[in-house]
Amino acid sequence: MRWTKSLIPTLKEDPQDAEVISHKLMIRAGLMRKLSSGAYSYLPLGFKMLTKVKTIIREEMQAAGAEEVLLPALQPLELWKKTGRDENLGEVMFKFRDRHGKIICLGPTHEEVITDLVSKEVSSYRDLPKILFQIQTKFRDELRPRFGVLRSCEFIMKDAYSFDATTKDADISYDKMFKAYKRIFSRCGLDYITVEADSGVMGGGVSHEFMVPSEKGEDLIITCASCGYAASRDMFRDDAPKTGDPCPKCGRKIKLHNAIEIGHTFKLGTKYSKTLGARFLANDRTEHDIIMGCYGIGVNRIIASMIETSNDKDGIICPPSIAPYEVVIMPLNMANAQVTKAAEKIYEDLRKSGLDILIDDREVSAGIKFKDSDLIGFPLQVIIGEKNLKDGKGEVKVRKTQKSHKADLKDIPDQTKSLLEKTKSQKT
Amino acid sequence: MRWTKSLIPTLKEDPQDAEVISHKLMIRAGLMRKLSSGAYSYLPLGFKMLTKVKTIIREEMQAAGAEEVLLPALQPLELWKKTGRDENLGEVMFKFRDRHGKIICLGPTHEEVITDLVSKEVSSYRDLPKILFQIQTKFRDELRPRFGVLRSCEFIMKDAYSFDATTKDADISYDKMFKAYKRIFSRCGLDYITVEADSGVMGGGVSHEFMVPSEKGEDLIITCASCGYAASRDMFRDDAPKTGDPCPKCGRKIKLHNAIEIGHTFKLGTKYSKTLGARFLANDRTEHDIIMGCYGIGVNRIIASMIETSNDKDGIICPPSIAPYEVVIMPLNMANAQVTKAAEKIYEDLRKSGLDILIDDREVSAGIKFKDSDLIGFPLQVIIGEKNLKDGKGEVKVRKTQKSHKADLKDIPDQTKSLLEKTKSQKT
Repeated sequence: MRWTKSLIPTLKEDPQDAEVISHKLMIRAGLMRKLSSGAYSYLPLGFKMLTKVKTIIREEMQAAGAEEVLLPALQPLELWKKTGRDENLGEVMFKFRDRHGKIICLGPTHEEVITDLVSKEVSSYRDLPKILFQIQTKFRDELRPRFGVLRSCEFIMKDAYSFDATTKDADISYDKMFKAYKRIFSRCGLDYITVEADSGVMGGGVSHEFMVPSEKGEDLIITCASCGYAASRDMFRDDAPKTGDPCPKCGRKIKLHNAIEIGHTFKLGTKYSKTLGARFLANDRTEHDIIMGCYGIGVNRIIASMIETSNDKDGIICPPSIAPYEVVIMPLNMANAQVTKAAEKIYEDLRKSGLDILIDDREVSAGIKFKDSDLIGFPLQVIIGEKNLKDGKGEVKVRKTQKSHKADLKDIPDQTKSLLEKTKSQKT
Repeated sequence: MRWTKSLIPTLKEDPQDAEVISHKLMIRAGLMRKLSSGAYSYLPLGFKMLTKVKTIIREEMQAAGAEEVLLPALQPLELWKKTGRDENLGEVMFKFRDRHGKIICLGPTHEEVITDLVSKEVSSYRDLPKILFQIQTKFRDELRPRFGVLRSCEFIMKDAYSFDATTKDADISYDKMFKAYKRIFSRCGLDYITVEADSGVMGGGVSHEFMVPSEKGEDLIITCASCGYAASRDMFRDDAPKTGDPCPKCGRKIKLHNAIEIGHTFKLGTKYSKTLGARFLANDRTEHDIIMGCYGIGVNRIIASMIETSNDKDGIICPPSIAPYEVVIMPLNMANAQVTKAAEKIYEDLRKSGLDILIDDREVSAGIKFKDSDLIGFPLQVIIGEKNLKDGKGEVKVRKTQKSHKADLKDIPDQTKSLLEKTKSQKT
């Protein structure tokens, strides 16, 4: 892709309403723009990152045996009344009447819809186990939308639901999803920790949260450096522990941190299947409630969380797995035909090798090119300048280390490929 | 994929509320289920078809130089007031208040949002031309949702928008999109015609509709067999022509048909850019309104339209390009170990060749397997039965022709591949 053909409106200044670094950088790097409170438009670079995250999620969900579906955002209120969650969710759920006077909700989550579907389409133990997932927009009427896509009214969620005949099978499904989540977050370059959590409005029993520690995080977690215990502070309700208190597991001292949840897994038991009639006939012809689990990932939050923990004074440091482009080619002086010719050749060579590449073909100063590429955080910068070119050389700079590697022009494509592989194999 | 691991709930009976064949077959083939009036859940097979259609659209949009973005479904009413389309769309637009009392709309289309975005991010002739597109859910409060996904309240649309500095450039963009549309519909196996159309609520000048002729279609078009002229009847307003009337172009007789629009392209001119302030600075420092075009495709409608024209008494006849699976392997008797072993081997062989395959591993009668596969319309069926197996043979049946090709077991994978290539190269 050519920079001049794309829409990459970078900004020098932080947006006024941005309180956290990911929000500031996502706007400044031209990944997205605010349409209204809690609703963001993804521009080409942000959309590319979303797509890469979705692809990783799909690959891992499919590898774990889950199948993709797509459920409506428009949902009838009656379904929510059956589980009583219309009251639990309260004002968070957008509700309105259609032209015929029927009350419609905008799905804040899909347990009711999927359980209702499965209650009608699954009837025998032979149909189980089953794991279904979707990547779908959710809507929540947040009291105070803030922190960019970390707390917005419209966001993309991957939600998976498991359906099993026995508790043992349900544990196997839960474990499959748990392991898939670890792979997803690792592949997205996130420094996450898993904590025991409270099930809250979701109900059911055991649940785990996947957290990215962050100073401005809205969630509080406790961790024990001695035994490795980690839990959401919500688990303790009124008896909230603080730094220095004894660990509930080993008795040594715990630490209290802030952390912006990126995933949550729940063992739901039969809470939804019982209420919505999702039952199955066992081998012995007896009827039972299906045992369920549900598993959510905030897709936009993955990007914001990565940025929260992977940035420096110059901007974002993207891991190659979810970077909008893996490499940016920077001809520093577009007026010099030798510079542009050399840059174009490398661009073509690397494109043919299957790399995801942007060429910064704007007629702007070298300073602007450096600043913008550092801001967006492309993992590698291939720099073609007049000075090096006189010696038949170019440079490859690694964004994360800011380390430059000079090489003969003809070796630049191989140099880039090998540095990219090296960057991919390193933890962000 | 294994049939028993997926969720493919086929039905013998037509759903009671279905009036058109595509709606009946999409439910019976287990592609989707109705959640409520005008809102459908896509099950795994339906979702796979949606994904294949989206991939074709993305490939052709990118080849035409368009870049993908993602705009919010939640939109502030103020934007719509600026263009006056809040009144034009009337009750079709879902509107409600958020918890702070602000009126929010659910996007029925995105001209306002994209023009507002471009007005803020594009300022120079250097930034033009630009074509942006998204694949996003649209919401419309239909008076009478019907015909399954042909007229629903929530549907997936590909909407593209072009931005140009001159009328000549705008024509070039329009032409690029027009050609891309032809390729998209051809690749999806649709028998479509293009007609001159009325711009209606969209405003602007020239527009074309891509139509699939269908008896139950809600749109009316006239065609002239002599000169090839085709137009929407809406073009003629009160002076509506009928079959046998003179062609407005050559004077010979026209025909009036019914036809379920799958795409629409519009030359918008400056209608939106003028109102929303999307202007650019020309080379000579004078300021001008950006010239726009917009281009919509109903993604779900592509599937329904294909089914409307590509079916027989047994069910759907899917073109390989958008079939949920290209091939279904049918071991007719799961109790016979030789049958299942032979079928599994072919399944593995074909999977390794990169084909998209389902194996019908259900312990049901051969009759049910045949009926279900014909109903869903997988392009090829690989049939492994006891009788043929005694002679070391299997069969490959082409769904469209119902013609069977017997072959030695070892040759079945190659036979399947060559028949698939042949089916792909034929027009559906």
